[in-house]
Amino acid sequence: MINISNLIRDLELVREKSPLIHNITNYVVMNNTANGLLAVGASPVMAHSLEEVADMASIASALVINIGTLEPEWVKAMLIAGKTALEKGTPIVFDPVGAGATPYRTNVCKQIIEECKPSVIRGNASEIMALCNAGIQTKGVDSTDSSDSALESAKTLARKTNAVVVISGQTDYITDGDNVRTVKNGNPMMARVTGMGCTATAVVAAFTAVNPDLLEAATHGMAIMSIAGEIAAHRSSGNGSLQVNFLDELYNLNGDTIKANIKL
Amino acid sequence: MINISNLIRDLELVREKSPLIHNITNYVVMNNTANGLLAVGASPVMAHSLEEVADMASIASALVINIGTLEPEWVKAMLIAGKTALEKGTPIVFDPVGAGATPYRTNVCKQIIEECKPSVIRGNASEIMALCNAGIQTKGVDSTDSSDSALESAKTLARKTNAVVVISGQTDYITDGDNVRTVKNGNPMMARVTGMGCTATAVVAAFTAVNPDLLEAATHGMAIMSIAGEIAAHRSSGNGSLQVNFLDELYNLNGDTIKANIKL
Amino acid sequence: MINISNLIRDLELVREKSPLIHNITNYVVMNNTANGLLAVGASPVMAHSLEEVADMASIASALVINIGTLEPEWVKAMLIAGKTALEKGTPIVFDPVGAGATPYRTNVCKQIIEECKPSVIRGNASEIMALCNAGIQTKGVDSTDSSDSALESAKTLARKTNAVVVISGQTDYITDGDNVRTVKNGNPMMARVTGMGCTATAVVAAFTAVNPDLLEAATHGMAIMSIAGEIAAHRSSGNGSLQVNFLDELYNLNGDTIKANIKL
Repeated sequence: MINISNLIRDLELVREKSPLIHNITNYVVMNNTANGLLAVGASPVMAHSLEEVADMASIASALVINIGTLEPEWVKAMLIAGKTALEKGTPIVFDPVGAGATPYRTNVCKQIIEECKPSVIRGNASEIMALCNAGIQTKGVDSTDSSDSALESAKTLARKTNAVVVISGQTDYITDGDNVRTVKNGNPMMARVTGMGCTATAVVAAFTAVNPDLLEAATHGMAIMSIAGEIAAHRSSGNGSLQVNFLDELYNLNGDTIKANIKL
Repeated sequence: MINISNLIRDLELVREKSPLIHNITNYVVMNNTANGLLAVGASPVMAHSLEEVADMASIASALVINIGTLEPEWVKAMLIAGKTALEKGTPIVFDPVGAGATPYRTNVCKQIIEECKPSVIRGNASEIMALCNAGIQTKGVDSTDSSDSALESAKTLARKTNAVVVISGQTDYITDGDNVRTVKNGNPMMARVTGMGCTATAVVAAFTAVNPDLLEAATHGMAIMSIAGEIAAHRSSGNGSLQVNFLDELYNLNGDTIKANIKL
Repeated sequence: MINISNLIRDLELVREKSPLIHNITNYVVMNNTANGLLAVGASPVMAHSLEEVADMASIASALVINIGTLEPEWVKAMLIAGKTALEKGTPIVFDPVGAGATPYRTNVCKQIIEECKPSVIRGNASEIMALCNAGIQTKGVDSTDSSDSALESAKTLARKTNAVVVISGQTDYITDGDNVRTVKNGNPMMARVTGMGCTATAVVAAFTAVNPDLLEAATHGMAIMSIAGEIAAHRSSGNGSLQVNFLDELYNLNGDTIKANIKL
């Protein structure tokens, strides 16, 4: 059950502190991710060069690792940044885009989880199940499993990795292996905007930067995403306008709109 | 002459089958391309790492190769993915962005055409002419020749390569070397939105994934692009809103809007 | 003081000549930058491969170097393109994104300035101050200093480098070390759209391609950006719609809207 006061408090904290979020993410979504973080009140930076990732991770309040358009040099950078963040106790939010689609992706995911010990792992049902069961082959980056059936995998993954695991779907599930939180807002049209999940990962990172209770922080990030997306979808006629309206709603979200729209 | 029933059938097939389209494309347009494919009903994936391009190409229903921001490592990936697709009989749609602007681009285009034998080649008039005549130097990525004068080059290129060749312009021409199809919808403002041609290439790929008649599939992809773009342009006041409205129109296009707007 | 007639003349020249602007810029903003250049009437090309940057820089009317997501191979390309432009007398506009945030960024900035001798350097106050004083550490890519306090640094930097230096902020300052021009249009919401500064850099480059008076050209570019951004912000409800509306306003800007909105 989401505590609405705490949710609003965390949103206000993100806007007040404007935490620096270091993103090593994919080419497709860099613009959306940066604008999503700016809309919610955080301060994004994208940097991946081996020459500076450790320095950048050192000054960031949270690190996003997203493997969407991975390649070996970028994976090296992810590992260096991740280990730096791990040593400093900076939260790491990991997005295993397309896990299960190719052996390379699945193997890189395992390596990042083992070496960087992410604080939060956010994916769709296929991706989370693939991380628990390397035998599953997903269909690219879209989910082919319902998030309900993946909840057990998420719990197992959370217990194995000590990470909070988030499954995005019609209902979002957030679990630390024992407890499960749900986010019921959202709209199916959101899945037709590329990178909506990647933006969710970055927004979750912004919340982990202001709230050390990772289960709550991840739940709050997903709730903010889903409420803004749902409001935006109601006034959007396609994925073009939804991408734009989503940012505007995220930019304007406040205690009143949260209270008026949240589904518990 | 476009067969409207077949056009609508193919759009419905794309939406029903949601074919996985593997894109190795340029940084500028990755977001637009992914959203364009999602809008039309296909399932996009972007992957370029040498470690996984063959695996990804193997599970895709069509492959897009676009050299917009090429570099040697990416060209290697294009060739591996292209040869994989060729062996499996998966359609390849090639976008020779900026062919003729630098010797490197022209040479890479030739290599991709020779080694991957693309099913469809889509470019503007300058690019298609450059592929036929290496002596021509184009002005960056914008077209400086009328598409009419390039039709002969397109036919020659089609005959030499066994590919269907598409020239985008005020009127689009689609030819297999013998037959020529035309698409008369569109709006000049579309040329002021970056990556509109690259999105056309990806949408054509989605249609080749559901229709083995490549001349027809390419014509249908271009028709869908041009109709959506023309409707969107009528309610857009600049290239910002056109980029957004185009996606919305593509998302909502159906038999009725096609019949009401197509120019034959 | 901006000469309005000259400003309008330069905008018309950009639209008439449609200069080819070669951009070596960051992944986050490539799409915005290309659309911004198309909106203002210029012709963008993005190319970074060592195999072609010299050729592309040779045919361009201006070169943009932006280090936002730098890495060693890209820096090599920037240096090759920059030296080519320098030899040919083609204007170079340099955007030192995040200068001061990491030692690597600051060092690369120094190398680019020394070896390529940019015509114009555009940054926010933190970045410009960092270039004058390597000891300053900025907070990522957002400005933490007021542009007023940085004016002295800008003058010093301009005198040391022989470049026109631009500080973006509530008021923009443009200086050649002796003279100072100001641009008073704009809106604080522009800072919440990622890459707005990067687009400013590219628009300035388009103006240097048509006006050899670099102090005036840079002032005109910043004025056009700020007027379009201010008009767009008045009808935008968040950073999503502002990104879109800004392009539309830039696309439609003309003598009448400039005269009606410019603040002198």
